[in-house]
Amino acid sequence: MRRPSAQLQIDRRAEILDAAARAFSRAGFHGASMADICAEAGMSPGNLYRYFRSKEEIIAAICERDRAAALDGFASVAKAPDFWSAFADLARYHFVERPTDDIALCAEVFAESRRNPEIAKLNQQFDGDVKRWLCELLRDAALRGDIHPQTDVEGCVRMLIVMADGLFWRRAIDATFDAEGTLPLFLDLTKHMLTAGPLATQGEQG
Amino acid sequence: MRRPSAQLQIDRRAEILDAAARAFSRAGFHGASMADICAEAGMSPGNLYRYFRSKEEIIAAICERDRAAALDGFASVAKAPDFWSAFADLARYHFVERPTDDIALCAEVFAESRRNPEIAKLNQQFDGDVKRWLCELLRDAALRGDIHPQTDVEGCVRMLIVMADGLFWRRAIDATFDAEGTLPLFLDLTKHMLTAGPLATQGEQG
Repeated sequence: MRRPSAQLQIDRRAEILDAAARAFSRAGFHGASMADICAEAGMSPGNLYRYFRSKEEIIAAICERDRAAALDGFASVAKAPDFWSAFADLARYHFVERPTDDIALCAEVFAESRRNPEIAKLNQQFDGDVKRWLCELLRDAALRGDIHPQTDVEGCVRMLIVMADGLFWRRAIDATFDAEGTLPLFLDLTKHMLTAGPLATQGEQG
Repeated sequence: MRRPSAQLQIDRRAEILDAAARAFSRAGFHGASMADICAEAGMSPGNLYRYFRSKEEIIAAICERDRAAALDGFASVAKAPDFWSAFADLARYHFVERPTDDIALCAEVFAESRRNPEIAKLNQQFDGDVKRWLCELLRDAALRGDIHPQTDVEGCVRMLIVMADGLFWRRAIDATFDAEGTLPLFLDLTKHMLTAGPLATQGEQG
């Protein structure tokens, strides 16, 4: 038997992850079996098990891929000449353009994390990374003068994550949700939050 | 056998719904069986089945109860002398004080609605009601001068629901989430959205 090349292995892994995302999105984390994922990927179980031994391993790999993509997205905003236009592009990708299978999978992973400690741990790591990267991004933006220098960075990142969760969730559960029409309001609220300075109550405490 | 009084029946129903909410929150909609709900409520299956014949019937009754509570909440804001202070009280109840079992149950119902058409229908009805009531509340507030008269009511309601989903969701999946600390920012964003007038882009279209 010929050993598959490294590139072929990477491609196969990516194909399996895409197939698994579709299967999980359709049937849920519990509803989709390894056999379903094999069928969706057009692979034999023996072949698939050479890449991933469990659904948890597949979810971990999907999280890892999403993590790398999220880091790329934040890095592209960090180095863009125009902070707000790059931020708007990133928001459009995540909240409007990103395939619904990806979004639905996020919702599945969130829901599963309430009971599956392994998934909860992955989710927490992912959340922690996103939080840290967003804080870095906003602190740099404050230094460059793109946002208000006294912005409550941690508070604003918490609220950004709340809005992102809500936007993902609506897309996942409501086929009639107008993501395109909601984007301008999301961007307006974000701009207000990041340019108006700290809230009066936080100013008193700080 | 004595027939239970109407009040006793209402109390028993409420106790069953509370017990079911705890069981669903702990084990998920699929993980919690009718037997688990009986055990949680301290009732025999025969007795419980006199009130509810399925988990779907229980979820429907919980939705109905939440629906009535939501309507009460919106009505209390509509008739309050100070719109913004009543709005803040309602937000505090839902996003900070409301028991986590309730919140976790909402997350379960959301997740289940992606695959269970019966639950999806309940969820859609509930969503439709909340959307309609919030639109009425904001249109009245605009007439009274509590918010900007040209507010894009439908757009703002969509964004309020996105933020509410995100806040519920964070509380449900993240035990470390600082709901109390996020409330002032949520209220500030809502005030900005409802008092600054329509967005420039929406103004051009309208």
